[in-house]
Amino acid sequence: MSRPANRTLGLSDRRSETAQVQSRGSASAADRWLLSTIMAALPRAGFSVMLWDGTTLGEQTGVRVLFRDRGALWQLARNPLVQFGDLYSAGRIEVEGDLVIFLERLYRAMSAGRRGRRSAWWWLWHDQRPRAGSPATARENIHHHYNLGNDFYRLWLDADALQYTCAYYPAPGMTLEAAQRAKMDHVCRKLRLRPGQRVIEAGFGWGGFALHMARHYGVSVRAYNIASEQVRYAREWAAREGLEGRVEFVEDDYRDIRGHCDAFVSVGMLEHVGVENYAVLGKVIGRCLSANGLGLIHTIGRNAPGRMNGWIERRIFPGAYPPSLGEMMAIFEPLAFSVLDVENLRLHYAQTLRDWRARFGANLETVRAMYDTAFTRAWDLYLAGSIAGFMAGTLQLYQVVFARGTNNDLSASRADLYA
Amino acid sequence: MSRPANRTLGLSDRRSETAQVQSRGSASAADRWLLSTIMAALPRAGFSVMLWDGTTLGEQTGVRVLFRDRGALWQLARNPLVQFGDLYSAGRIEVEGDLVIFLERLYRAMSAGRRGRRSAWWWLWHDQRPRAGSPATARENIHHHYNLGNDFYRLWLDADALQYTCAYYPAPGMTLEAAQRAKMDHVCRKLRLRPGQRVIEAGFGWGGFALHMARHYGVSVRAYNIASEQVRYAREWAAREGLEGRVEFVEDDYRDIRGHCDAFVSVGMLEHVGVENYAVLGKVIGRCLSANGLGLIHTIGRNAPGRMNGWIERRIFPGAYPPSLGEMMAIFEPLAFSVLDVENLRLHYAQTLRDWRARFGANLETVRAMYDTAFTRAWDLYLAGSIAGFMAGTLQLYQVVFARGTNNDLSASRADLYA
Repeated sequence: MSRPANRTLGLSDRRSETAQVQSRGSASAADRWLLSTIMAALPRAGFSVMLWDGTTLGEQTGVRVLFRDRGALWQLARNPLVQFGDLYSAGRIEVEGDLVIFLERLYRAMSAGRRGRRSAWWWLWHDQRPRAGSPATARENIHHHYNLGNDFYRLWLDADALQYTCAYYPAPGMTLEAAQRAKMDHVCRKLRLRPGQRVIEAGFGWGGFALHMARHYGVSVRAYNIASEQVRYAREWAAREGLEGRVEFVEDDYRDIRGHCDAFVSVGMLEHVGVENYAVLGKVIGRCLSANGLGLIHTIGRNAPGRMNGWIERRIFPGAYPPSLGEMMAIFEPLAFSVLDVENLRLHYAQTLRDWRARFGANLETVRAMYDTAFTRAWDLYLAGSIAGFMAGTLQLYQVVFARGTNNDLSASRADLYA
Repeated sequence: MSRPANRTLGLSDRRSETAQVQSRGSASAADRWLLSTIMAALPRAGFSVMLWDGTTLGEQTGVRVLFRDRGALWQLARNPLVQFGDLYSAGRIEVEGDLVIFLERLYRAMSAGRRGRRSAWWWLWHDQRPRAGSPATARENIHHHYNLGNDFYRLWLDADALQYTCAYYPAPGMTLEAAQRAKMDHVCRKLRLRPGQRVIEAGFGWGGFALHMARHYGVSVRAYNIASEQVRYAREWAAREGLEGRVEFVEDDYRDIRGHCDAFVSVGMLEHVGVENYAVLGKVIGRCLSANGLGLIHTIGRNAPGRMNGWIERRIFPGAYPPSLGEMMAIFEPLAFSVLDVENLRLHYAQTLRDWRARFGANLETVRAMYDTAFTRAWDLYLAGSIAGFMAGTLQLYQVVFARGTNNDLSASRADLYA
């Protein structure tokens, strides 16, 4: 995989270079007015902003945003969330100091601004609806992200199980590999997996979790994914481990899941499903899950319904939408599934992303050689912004365990998860 | 307390006696048609029905429903859920065999019937909306139930803490007293209570939990309740225990809660709040809870929105409405509270109710002397029906832990709850 990053992320460097040349020189009164309007909408933001000619506004806190040209400032105002990402990727906006701290302060200031209804300007920070998730669109969106190349993800994900989802750090000082193993075991315990059971997994990534379940819990797994590069990788991996007989990797949409199972699990797929398809997902589960089976959905979520960050939605994860817990109920309530256990692992995702970003940072030159500087900066911004989102509480990580409403074969407590 | 039970529960024995006299004699073709229509709407219900003249329909399974007079049969058809309760209380319907097993089979058959849309007749089993919960109505509804008399509840609740809410049986063979203590400790652990913290409790029953928190966790508690008999009882109890300085029992509505707290807890009040008031409850919590405080709401709930059993709503708990988890989000989402942990303790409530009913059954003569036979039968039906509801999965018990969206002072795992 080595598509040029500009095409991959939809960025255009040519336009930005032209703009840069046209817009140097001293900041005008209009430039300063726009800058002060932006900063006024971010009360006590905790960072300063400097224009290309040295004009500076905001608190001196060791975090400073630099606009390298006039066009960058005016472009930002058009659609701040999307433009910030593009301009940062292109190097026309720079952040001095800790990028995560800057983004966390920015998100907190934005949330405070929204709650206080400080300025009509803030409506700009809302973005349009994510694209609808028909099977064809789903395929296109997923290919956009997951077919970037297995080699790319191997640079910074855990080496053992290639988990591109939130890890679990119940004890301090755990490595990423240990935390991903702990996450997989935590999910398996929540599902009370027993040898011989049949598991259906919706969205399997590179297959690491399916193989883990088969290897350590003695279950057979039928797993679904529409990202063809991942499917190929997973099948080869299963063959290498001699687990082809116990793990079946199917290249198909979750809507086409067939068969019966004692456990239904989906880790990190729901973000790509779209609220409008939750009832369908519920029906699929209703068709598959045995009378006394358990299900678990692990997903990025939000405290209240709201759009994904517009830049991430456009450049990184087309079609992604993290639901609120209330929105998730559209999966469970129509069939009267019983929600047994919800755990929010928000801060674990911040730690996971810190580990990923550290490894990504150690491989910057390799990534630049595979793609280019704009892609490298964009991906680093995405990882940093995600850490900031989980730290600022604009993103959550829900694990929801559920069963049929008539299933009385339930554990007396959750103590066994921690034994 | 010794109001006549007829007034207390709104039952009228006079009318039923007259009806009984008028309607003996052989079952007519019309009677038999009605009976077969009722039974056809309950596919594979697992019980038989016998009319006053011996006419019988349905499977012979050791569970049999007897209609003692014609009026009872025709009255039932008018509004089955409400009428069944009233006719059973009046002794005009009798159940031979295990009452809980009968009700569980009935509920399962009703759920199956509803899902299959078997018969328009089933719409009858839906009842009207519960009464709206203005502060005045709330007061009236709560008085209806909780002012029945402290002596009455002391006959069958746990002796130590008088908990009229779901207990927690993590190990087999626990007594009701141990299980209620385990419930209170489970809630305190989920709230991570530390000595010196301020707790606000919304709806305190007889005060047992507030006193437990003050005694065992070193916190100070301000607790609210509008049931005046309970408030009196709680204040005397606090004085006896020498805890008046640390526990303040306020006779007021949850809407009037004032002050700040490190933990907000409500065990068994939400059922009486009404969905239309959830946003107000959320605002109350938003006003009270400290930046890094935790909250917990413990409530009966449902897998999907739906009315309370009409008879219980009219005769036992006026205004009660157990919400779905989705409906509960109306408390949390408007202020972007972060839901951290949801646990469903449905089967624990079935066990709690079994323990209550056993003690109630051991005190039948005392209850009859305090009230009358109709009241005694009504209450036993309510306890049996509630066991059946939790066993059949038509009722759930949710404990929801939450925090402000910006609170990062969170436990790394839930292992400490089980240490």
